[in-house]
Amino acid sequence: MPLETQPHRVSRRTVRVEWGDCDAAGIVYFPRYFAWFDASTSAAFVSVGFSKHELIERYGIVGMPVRDVRANFSIPSTFEDELVIETRISEWGRTSFTVQHRLFRQADLTAVAVEGREVRVWVVRDPADARRLRGAPIPLEVRERFL
Amino acid sequence: MPLETQPHRVSRRTVRVEWGDCDAAGIVYFPRYFAWFDASTSAAFVSVGFSKHELIERYGIVGMPVRDVRANFSIPSTFEDELVIETRISEWGRTSFTVQHRLFRQADLTAVAVEGREVRVWVVRDPADARRLRGAPIPLEVRERFL
Amino acid sequence: MPLETQPHRVSRRTVRVEWGDCDAAGIVYFPRYFAWFDASTSAAFVSVGFSKHELIERYGIVGMPVRDVRANFSIPSTFEDELVIETRISEWGRTSFTVQHRLFRQADLTAVAVEGREVRVWVVRDPADARRLRGAPIPLEVRERFL
Amino acid sequence: MPLETQPHRVSRRTVRVEWGDCDAAGIVYFPRYFAWFDASTSAAFVSVGFSKHELIERYGIVGMPVRDVRANFSIPSTFEDELVIETRISEWGRTSFTVQHRLFRQADLTAVAVEGREVRVWVVRDPADARRLRGAPIPLEVRERFL
Repeated sequence: MPLETQPHRVSRRTVRVEWGDCDAAGIVYFPRYFAWFDASTSAAFVSVGFSKHELIERYGIVGMPVRDVRANFSIPSTFEDELVIETRISEWGRTSFTVQHRLFRQADLTAVAVEGREVRVWVVRDPADARRLRGAPIPLEVRERFL
Repeated sequence: MPLETQPHRVSRRTVRVEWGDCDAAGIVYFPRYFAWFDASTSAAFVSVGFSKHELIERYGIVGMPVRDVRANFSIPSTFEDELVIETRISEWGRTSFTVQHRLFRQADLTAVAVEGREVRVWVVRDPADARRLRGAPIPLEVRERFL
Repeated sequence: MPLETQPHRVSRRTVRVEWGDCDAAGIVYFPRYFAWFDASTSAAFVSVGFSKHELIERYGIVGMPVRDVRANFSIPSTFEDELVIETRISEWGRTSFTVQHRLFRQADLTAVAVEGREVRVWVVRDPADARRLRGAPIPLEVRERFL
Repeated sequence: MPLETQPHRVSRRTVRVEWGDCDAAGIVYFPRYFAWFDASTSAAFVSVGFSKHELIERYGIVGMPVRDVRANFSIPSTFEDELVIETRISEWGRTSFTVQHRLFRQADLTAVAVEGREVRVWVVRDPADARRLRGAPIPLEVRERFL
């Protein structure tokens, strides 16, 4: 069974769109969705017992920066909308992983409003040059929590 | 000659990375790139003589929301970096168009640090329901300015 | 009894600090607090039955922009902190009102981490010039909901 | 001559308001002004030869977080407005200093649109507890650059 079609642990969170999340057209300013997706990825790790503070302290990573991102915006949202974001890690590589997000308006949970996909890298500081980041192998015990 | 390989009018702007653009790892928080790309798209229209205020007043559009976006982050930047963003509209559809952005660090103009691609829609309010937006044909005179 | 010492309806909400809310020092980037306070003011109105959409539709206001703001930052917060914000409207003028916010870290509810105070104006568009905003009398029925 | 009335070195920068800086009322979302003021404070230090990277490396500070801020918003701005921000350090304490900002619309340089005042602290990490920050004496050579 190809990895992409295997069932994945899905975490969910809700977001309330605020006035300041909207642009002059009165709809969510699209970069805000990426901040929400970023928080949803963090929440997915918390849901398996790993806070970011713990990941940083235990594994010495600097973070999990995004290397590649895509999103598709089908339905706009406005302030005071309640949104539901479903997040799952759909693929694990040696030093990177793929996260998929589906965002729905609470008012209509049958239609995906925004879909996003991030490829993130597990990075540490380069011992030879602290200003450089480089990918590092993702510990097996981290991946296993998501099974 | 396929459209994608035709020469396009390129507009350039520079951005200085500020402290508040960075996350706790000290590098640009990735949603900020989308805000800069968004401003670069606006600047591309200004470069051919169309401010957004004028587009809204003259053509009755609500804006040019992004329907689809991709980005690829190769080189991180930090506060006080100077960035150069090159923007061009690479494709015109009837109601949508594609914008390509290439972002370089001023310190190394040979390496693309971030690459982005937006598909945007020319939208007006639905006369039957002011809260709905729908695509509208892009006026020929707007497209022609970019030739 | 002077107005300031009268008891006021207090509304509370919690905020989780996200990675992207922090700056390169790893603490909340201070403009973020103002966005949270802004959302807390909206929530205070919702708590008495007025969504912003309803206020706009019913009273024709453009919003309640801040005319004056102060804040005092005593204790920094970092990503994954849970914050509690207590909000109350402490004073009503004819066209403006004062909102006070006290923000605590969930980990220590005895110490105020950030204190903020906004003076906001009830504004409508100037009928003679749609780009100008001007203060308008706050309807009594709005004020009364907070008693 | 009282300190406040002494002449101060003034630095100036311009900011172009972008679509994404505005809220659903079409005017600048007020927390954005604080981000611009923050960048203006950084620029004031750069204007006397101190980048933030250099301050951090040379003096071991974590940053210059704001302890206290006030602002007064008199004239709203909208996307595509050009703004001019004038910044000066009006007072130096042992571990803190006061920064004053005046923001004008380029279209009318006679009227202050927004006025802001930040008290900032020169902070280092507490050697006994790296998660705590504490004030440290501002080096004389830093202050002297502003005379």
